Amino acid sequence: METLLLAKEDVRTNTPMPDLVAALREAFVAYERGDAQMPAKSYIDLPQYNGDFRSMPAYLETEEWDAAGIKWVNVHPDNPDSFDLPTVMGTMIYSDPTNAYPLAIMDGTELTMKRTGAAAAVATDALAVADASSLGIVGAGVQSYTQLEAIAEVRDIEEVVVSDLREERVTRFIERFEDEFDVRAGTISEAGHCDVLSTVTPVEDPIVHPADLGEHTHVNAMGADAAGKHEIADDALLAAKLVIDDYAQTTHSGEINVPWSAGVLDDDDIYGELGEILTGQKEGRTADDTVTVFDSTGLAIQDVAAAHVVYTHADEHGVGTGFDLLGV
Amino acid sequence: METLLLAKEDVRTNTPMPDLVAALREAFVAYERGDAQMPAKSYIDLPQYNGDFRSMPAYLETEEWDAAGIKWVNVHPDNPDSFDLPTVMGTMIYSDPTNAYPLAIMDGTELTMKRTGAAAAVATDALAVADASSLGIVGAGVQSYTQLEAIAEVRDIEEVVVSDLREERVTRFIERFEDEFDVRAGTISEAGHCDVLSTVTPVEDPIVHPADLGEHTHVNAMGADAAGKHEIADDALLAAKLVIDDYAQTTHSGEINVPWSAGVLDDDDIYGELGEILTGQKEGRTADDTVTVFDSTGLAIQDVAAAHVVYTHADEHGVGTGFDLLGV
Repeated sequence: METLLLAKEDVRTNTPMPDLVAALREAFVAYERGDAQMPAKSYIDLPQYNGDFRSMPAYLETEEWDAAGIKWVNVHPDNPDSFDLPTVMGTMIYSDPTNAYPLAIMDGTELTMKRTGAAAAVATDALAVADASSLGIVGAGVQSYTQLEAIAEVRDIEEVVVSDLREERVTRFIERFEDEFDVRAGTISEAGHCDVLSTVTPVEDPIVHPADLGEHTHVNAMGADAAGKHEIADDALLAAKLVIDDYAQTTHSGEINVPWSAGVLDDDDIYGELGEILTGQKEGRTADDTVTVFDSTGLAIQDVAAAHVVYTHADEHGVGTGFDLLGV
Repeated sequence: METLLLAKEDVRTNTPMPDLVAALREAFVAYERGDAQMPAKSYIDLPQYNGDFRSMPAYLETEEWDAAGIKWVNVHPDNPDSFDLPTVMGTMIYSDPTNAYPLAIMDGTELTMKRTGAAAAVATDALAVADASSLGIVGAGVQSYTQLEAIAEVRDIEEVVVSDLREERVTRFIERFEDEFDVRAGTISEAGHCDVLSTVTPVEDPIVHPADLGEHTHVNAMGADAAGKHEIADDALLAAKLVIDDYAQTTHSGEINVPWSAGVLDDDDIYGELGEILTGQKEGRTADDTVTVFDSTGLAIQDVAAAHVVYTHADEHGVGTGFDLLGV
């Protein structure tokens, strides 16, 4: 039997965003309903290399399909300067839950970008105003592109404001999207006054303050993925309807980890998990809501759901490289 | 950059047993010295498929080399009958710790067999009589072959007695080794009266009793890898010098898990961990010792050390298939 190898470009071209957003939504619902298994992320810390490895296994079952797999991913911030390699690289093994055969091994880096965008889209659909037409992006790095690609699937985005300290990143972002959207450079405050804002930075000192946000902005706080990271000021978080992807992960390493650990923000300040809104246990945006915030850390179920979409699409279209790794 | 794909046959032919035994010994030493990181094995249980997935990440540093990686492995006992697939299949990602690039992806099934044999050899070297020349094997399944291959590296094995309820397994084992060893079928007691005995079965009711063992037999209890499994009778374990690979894993799922959980065997009955002997903190076999038992559950550091050997050998000899998975 052969395992399907899906390289970066294969993952990029076999991730139809509508399918991915739908699969991510189903993954959050399955998790909320208890139809998923997601052991805690485990870390291997290598301070001697200023890096770490993370293992993210998961299984989930929706009404239509189930899926299992593991993503092995790292964060090595010195990589670009020291090795001409990305800070984050991932490898995903996607397995058949019925017999555990590894159906596919795929680039987990591209997969992470795609599923992170799709998760923001699911949250945006639940929390942004229905007629949202403008999107702000703070941080125009590699993760920013899929924010726009995915969110444009759930709202009719016309205007995009992109903010980054590095001008070349802004230019690259604009060049990529100027044919499809009215996209321009702007300040953080200009980005924050759009209907939807996605923050995609690694900062530890908040850069988005209450005055930077519009009256009904929905914020996807995507950047924080480790203890100490923090993009949105505490007073903005406390004033917002605050929705998280997962309690254990967000309090440990999400946008809220710093104020939560300091006791500035407590459990009563958290409105709920995204899954609770998607399953109808709690309301999404209501007429009374002003600013909403989605704290996203990235869950292993997202990777497995995304891998399911990629594998299914690639397999149907004959994409990828078959390889008999296991000899069975 | 390319990741080296190493299929089953590549793993089989690039695992020089002397190198592997040496690497496993170094791995146990590194672990004992605190120069390894091994997050707890995490499980995904799928009772609907009578199976589970296990993720086994690790990092270890010896004086000469360091290595990181993860094995994603399953146990699906219905696989042979339902899918014509092995019960256990593994996929190993072997990464460069300095920058996390996945240097190799390899068949983890063959790797598991090889490193399990090598672990038994390390324990045998520490615990068997110096002039051991006979080896008994109880359970002639897929894991039994590397027991003989590896143990023959550390002792001058001449005579082999193999015991299994299934005659075809015994025949196959004898055919494989009859040119190299004086190998014959025998009872459990005949196997247990050899200088070294390796038990490699999945039984839950002990099949090796005190009367089945010789005066100075060293037993490698390799079979138990889940709660409830138990090959060696409690009175034999209690009478032996009992060495384990890892306290957390053996008390949870190793040979001792059943009597330990029942309180029949407690921490005072455990002589120590293999690493304590290898680092000289505790003595191995002494003149006073009679039966010794090594309780092996299989550690993630063993997989990473074995992957290091396989990758190094394959890379040096130009074996394997390069594949640009990550596109970096």
